[in-house]
Parts: sequence; structure tokens; C-alpha cells
Amino acid sequence: MARFLESGYSGKIYPVNPRADEILGLKAYPNLEAVPGPVDYAILNVPAKLTLQVLEDCIDKGVKIVHVFASGFEETGKEEGKKLQAALSKKTKDGGVRLLGPNCFGIYYPSEGLTFQIKLPRKSGPVAFVSQSGANCIRLVNMASLRGIHFSKVISYGNAADLDAADFLRYLEQDPETEIICCYIEGVRDGRPLFDAARSCAQKKPLILLKAGLTQGGSRAARFHTAADGGSYQVWDAFFKQTGAIEADSLEEMVDLLAAFLHLPTPRGRRVAVVGRGGGTGVLAAEICEREGLAIPSFSQHTLAELERMIPRVGICLNNPVEPPQRSLASVKEFMGWGLELIEKDPQIDIIFVHLFLDIFGPNGSDLEPGLEEVVSKFTGLSTSLTKPVVIVLYPGGRPDTANVVSRARERLFQAGVPVYPSFESAARAVSRYMRYRELFSQKESLNGPSESERRG
Amino acid sequence: MARFLESGYSGKIYPVNPRADEILGLKAYPNLEAVPGPVDYAILNVPAKLTLQVLEDCIDKGVKIVHVFASGFEETGKEEGKKLQAALSKKTKDGGVRLLGPNCFGIYYPSEGLTFQIKLPRKSGPVAFVSQSGANCIRLVNMASLRGIHFSKVISYGNAADLDAADFLRYLEQDPETEIICCYIEGVRDGRPLFDAARSCAQKKPLILLKAGLTQGGSRAARFHTAADGGSYQVWDAFFKQTGAIEADSLEEMVDLLAAFLHLPTPRGRRVAVVGRGGGTGVLAAEICEREGLAIPSFSQHTLAELERMIPRVGICLNNPVEPPQRSLASVKEFMGWGLELIEKDPQIDIIFVHLFLDIFGPNGSDLEPGLEEVVSKFTGLSTSLTKPVVIVLYPGGRPDTANVVSRARERLFQAGVPVYPSFESAARAVSRYMRYRELFSQKESLNGPSESERRG
Repeated sequence: MARFLESGYSGKIYPVNPRADEILGLKAYPNLEAVPGPVDYAILNVPAKLTLQVLEDCIDKGVKIVHVFASGFEETGKEEGKKLQAALSKKTKDGGVRLLGPNCFGIYYPSEGLTFQIKLPRKSGPVAFVSQSGANCIRLVNMASLRGIHFSKVISYGNAADLDAADFLRYLEQDPETEIICCYIEGVRDGRPLFDAARSCAQKKPLILLKAGLTQGGSRAARFHTAADGGSYQVWDAFFKQTGAIEADSLEEMVDLLAAFLHLPTPRGRRVAVVGRGGGTGVLAAEICEREGLAIPSFSQHTLAELERMIPRVGICLNNPVEPPQRSLASVKEFMGWGLELIEKDPQIDIIFVHLFLDIFGPNGSDLEPGLEEVVSKFTGLSTSLTKPVVIVLYPGGRPDTANVVSRARERLFQAGVPVYPSFESAARAVSRYMRYRELFSQKESLNGPSESERRG
Repeated sequence: MARFLESGYSGKIYPVNPRADEILGLKAYPNLEAVPGPVDYAILNVPAKLTLQVLEDCIDKGVKIVHVFASGFEETGKEEGKKLQAALSKKTKDGGVRLLGPNCFGIYYPSEGLTFQIKLPRKSGPVAFVSQSGANCIRLVNMASLRGIHFSKVISYGNAADLDAADFLRYLEQDPETEIICCYIEGVRDGRPLFDAARSCAQKKPLILLKAGLTQGGSRAARFHTAADGGSYQVWDAFFKQTGAIEADSLEEMVDLLAAFLHLPTPRGRRVAVVGRGGGTGVLAAEICEREGLAIPSFSQHTLAELERMIPRVGICLNNPVEPPQRSLASVKEFMGWGLELIEKDPQIDIIFVHLFLDIFGPNGSDLEPGLEEVVSKFTGLSTSLTKPVVIVLYPGGRPDTANVVSRARERLFQAGVPVYPSFESAARAVSRYMRYRELFSQKESLNGPSESERRG
């Protein structure tokens, strides 16, 4: 309750407690029946064994949705817990109420002041997250927030005794506050509704899904966490192929994907130009891009001729990857102008990756900061003027004197909506999966048509 | 020269320049012949076209090793550059001098005050790095230094017109200042010497190798960077299998591996216990470990019974992953005592992964810091008392108020020699590859015997 009050929730809150007259300055009621007027949403903060009784009160009161915070149900693996959850499901269905949980954190809806942790940001944004794990909600929201990415609605739904991922996806598909949907699923009771919801969703909004519980230990962990049945790798592999949901392998990768989807124009293809100082850095960049399924073509004749004209020096890689001519930030900044404009016009190139490695420059971090500031301003300007996506790989400063300077630059780029990655691995994987989404949905016919399984009856 | 003077190089330095009498306070000589006494090492800081002439002076003077900094040789892909490099190689061989380069940064040898960038750390350590790319040297050294890992000798060797990776490995294999060797190779002129050197090296010291130039674009980039022929994936795959060199896919992974090799006792096997708060965090941790080739077994009956006795609460995962009972740092710290000692004795477990996710705790970062400090002290104590490896995954703070607190804790753990990783991916991959090395060399017979190719004649 304190969280809602502090977060500025503007709706009415009725504390119910038989042993208090007032809680945090609000009049408390001995039971639900005593609450004046209707109740939309009840949060049951009682031990598992009292849940059934209070759920009955909710049904009598005509509550629409009940959130059960408590654990101690099917996830315990014990008879008592399983019976309790079965009884909860039955009473929910019979009573015509909907249930969120049990064993979950519930709702984080920042624009309304609903939150399950006081420290979550109050700022809202275009991303929704549906997750069986509350800890993963806190982790994703905070990681994303550091990158300037915020959330419309986050739902931690635990054991899914009633409402399940499919229900939330159906809602979020229509939700005008949500542009992109993330999902963390450990298991699902009924596959078909989720499949249909995901397929429908993915055609309207990008749907990024992290499926846990597919390995032996992961599956056991999921069973003891949310009583989830992890399922088989083959089935989920087909699920991704047929629904168009984008697979993420970790929460870190989910944030990398969010940055790409939110901030990059859709690449027309997989052909990448790599730009930045450091010969070996460029070689590894090219290598990593290709391992992740992107291509590093040679530049067209015109681009190469122009580069050779402008960069007459020896000892510089030119033909993709390409290096700005001098080992100075001024040279990098200058290249961001004519160089990127030239490369952007090359018909061989769909995406530009710029890597920036501050430690390669000799001077002190504090002396480098003004130059880096100019490069950052150039980038933020570019991100609006170029039509092909420009992805920045800004290596974390490895020296004590550059680490903070790089952090601050990254911060500014995040705030300007420029997608910045700390490594080529994370950048290339995110862009490659972003492209996969585009490739799938440029053949929309097949996805709008009946699925393989439906055709087979 | 300024770099050597500032880094405290104690040997004699003779500046050679026909147009100066004094450089940085040292008497300058018009040519090498005029230098009094013998010269061990000459650094040629002249354009490519003057190199041959100065090399001749070096040979006449009896210089032992010549480092050619300049680029403009075979890597240009142009006839002129190719001819120049061929002439350089021939003159080197005929003159009985050894050559480092061309097209490279040369030597960083911190304990002697030799460095190619003034900002590289002056502290030395047990790691050597042999790299065709100077930029990658700067990146690896700085990344490692942030983790408290330092270097004995770093060699940037560019086009390898004479001295090649095999020569450096042969030296480092015997070098008492070097305990572990890293290597970044774009191409190799003669495979057999490298194969033999790597196989011999790997049996004495861990050899971590990053092979670039194996993809189409990576190979083209390598050709324009160091005139390297990338080679084929199949050949290098066999190289790794037969030599026992440990493969790294990126410089980031190289540092992850260094932390494991330097700071962890060798795991006896691949069976991991996952410990930490956050149910979904644990599920993903288990999943990621298994994807990387580690196992997450159930605990033995005794361990489980003890855990059930000590953690009677519901809503807690127990049977690997296991959660400390309360969502508080005090509970985490307490569990680091009895919990880890209990788990360490479990015959089912070879390695313990502890994950720590500060954002899950409600209070402010500054309020959490004393508790985190205690957990860190507990960890640093543990790392000496436990015989099984304990790996820490300390997630970067995602909230502004936790980010700095986590950074400081990580710093303290690094300084205490505790291997700390920012994600389960990086930790699990490093430990898995560390194990592969151990597995290979527990069958030393086969590696000491003749290789497959040798047996076939």
C-alpha cells in the first residue's frame, strides 16, 4: 500500500484488516463486505492457507480481479500445495472472478502509480513485459531504464492458476500504450491459446520472447519456481518459427533487442559497413557480424574510389571495414560527416556499424571528453538525418580515466535515442534478430494464412 | 621515446636523427654507426620507403632485433608494398638480424618500462599476449587491468615478415614471468611451426587463442590489415582440438577466461550449484549454464534435507538452484557461511555459482552498501577457505542508486582476486572452456604422443 501511495496512485485504496482502524492514514475495514462501493482489484497479501476464504469474500463483493501474492501452492511440489491451487482455480472459475497468480508480484503500471517495488522508475514508456518471474521484471525494467527505455505495463503472473500469458498478450495487442511486447515464460498449461495469441500479436507489434525451462536443470528450476512444465525444445522452436515471435536467450539480449526495435529504422537487408579506428578491432567486428548472420560486403567501386581519394594514407583499412584517417577524435568526427554520408549512399550497404574505442587515443580521458562530446553530438544529429540504420558500438572505457567519460557519453546517446551497445556481439546479435523479424513479416501472406497445423486439421 | 622515458625504462636510449643534436634531453646521433657501443634493439620510426636503407645500417651495426613500426607493405595489397616487404624479409634473413613487424606497435613490457602507449598500466602480471593487432593489445590490456589482471609481456607483431607467433610462443613457453599466454592471430605463413609451438606451449601453460579471419569479411579485413591469409575453419578447428589451445571468440571472452584461469581452483567436473535470490534469476542461470555445457544436478539427499531444515519457508527454490531464505543482504551473507559450506561438501557438486542481484532489494543503494560490503568480505574470505571453485555473478546495478555501489563492490572483489562476472553467459562460458582445458590435459598421454597428422606420416 505504501508503494501505491508513494507512487501517486490516484484511485481509491481500501485497506482491509480485522485488527486495525487506520493504515498509513487511510481508514481500514474489518472485511471486504464493509468496504463502501465497488472494488475492481483486490490484492491478497495473506498466507496461502487463508487465500481461499478471502477469495470467497472477493467473489461475494463482486471484485473483478484478484491478485494472489502468496506462494505455497503447486510450485512446492507437495500434495497440500497442489490441492490448494486446484481449489483456488475451481473457486475462481465458479465465482466468475479473474485471478492473477498465485506466487507473483502482480502489476507495475507506472503511469497509474501501481508498482510492486518502490524503486522501479515512475516514468512510463512503450514497452510491456509479461513475466512469470517478478525478479526478472525488476531486472529487465532496471536494465532497460539505464538505457532510457521505459514500460507501459509489466505483469508478473507466477503460477498462472487462471490468467495466463495468452490473456495478457490478447490485451496488450490492443493496448494503445504498448508498442512492443516482451515475454518471459517458464511453462504454459494450454499451448493453443498462447500460440494463437502470439501469432496474432507478432503481426501487430514486435513480440520478444524468452522461453526458460527447456534444459534439464532449467526445467526442474521452473517446476519449483512456478510449477511450470518447461516443454520441449522442438515444440518451442516450431512455436518461434510459426508465430513470428523473436527469440531472446537472456534478459540482457532482450534489452539489446528493445534498443534496436525502438530506435533503429528497419534495415533493408543484412549487409553491414563497419567504421571505426583500430585495424584489429575492425577485423574482429567483421568476423563477429558474420558469425551472427550479417554480411560484410566490399564497398561499391564509387564508394571505394571516394574513400581512396579522401584517405590517401597507407596503413589504413578501407574496403569495409574502413578506418577514419587519423588516430584522433577530430578525424573520427569529421569522418562521421562525409564518410557516413558516402557509405550510406552505397547500394551494397544496408546498415552502418560505428565502433568507438576511446582507449586507443593517447590523451587523458578528461582531455578527450570535449572531442568525444562532439562525436556524440554528431551521432545524435545523424540518427535523424540518415535513412539507413546506424548502430554505435561504444566500448566501455578500460582505463580508469576513460571509464567515466565513456559512461557519460553512453548516457547522452541513450537519452537521445541512439542505440548504443557495449560490444559487437550484443550489437550484431540484436540487429540480426531484428532483421529476422523484418524478413518474416515481409512475407506477411504466409503468416496471415492458416498455420501448418491448422492446414493439417 | 617519450613513452620509454616516462615509463622509467632503465636501459640506454640512443635517438638517431640526422637533423637533431638532442632529443628530449638525450644526445642524438646522425646515424646508427655513430652510436657508441652495441645496440640490442632498434625501433624504426621511418616511412616504409626508407626502411630498407635503415635496416641495412642496423645489420652493419650488429643490431639483434629491429622493430618496424611503419605500414605500407604487403597489407596494402599493392605491388609496391608487396615488393618492399619481400625485400625486407630477404635482407633480414641475409643479414642475420631478426625483425618484428612491419606494421605493428611492437613491445609492451611494463616491468622494464617498455611500452607503445603511455597510458598502458605500469604494473606487470603473469599474462603474456601475442597479437597481430596493436589496437587489440590496448583493448585486452585495459579490459584486463580493470579486473586487476596485468601483463608480463605484450607483443604486437603485425605482418610477421620474419618473427611470427610460433617464435613468440616458444619464448613465452619458457618465460618465468609468464604463467598464461593469450594470442590473437589473423593468419600464419607456415602452419607447422605454429602447431608444434602451440601444442608444446599448451602442455606447460594455458594458451588462449582468438583466431580471426575465418569468415568472408573477416578474412578480407585481415588481408588488408596484416596481409594475413585467414585460413579455413576446418583446419583451425582441428588445430584447437589437437593442440589443446583454448579457443576464445572475442577479446571480452579472453578476459573472462583469464579471470577463471588465474583465480579459480580447477573444477573437478562440470556439475554446478546455483545460489542466489530471485526465482526467475535462478531458472535462467540454470538454463544458461546448461546451454554452455555445464550440468545442474539435484543436490544429494543429505544436502537437500539440511536445506529443508534450515529454510522452512515456502516460495523458495531449494533443490538447485537454491535461494537464501530472506530477501535481505543479511540473509545472503549468512547463507554464504553455512549454505556454501554445506553445498561444497555435496559430492554431486563441482563448482558453485553465486549470483547477486542488488536491485531486487528494496532499500536505497547507499543503505544497501554496508550489507553488500559484508557479503563481499565474506566472499573474499571464502575464496581462500573453500576448495571447490566459487564463481560470482554480480549483476551490474540497474538503478542509478545501485550502479555505483555495485561497481565499487566489483572493484573490491577484483582486487581480492575473486573472479566476478557481469552475466551468467560470460561466467558459464568461461568456466565451461576452463573445464575443457582440464579435460584435455587429464588425458595427457594422447596429447604428449604424436599428433594425428604425424601418425599418418
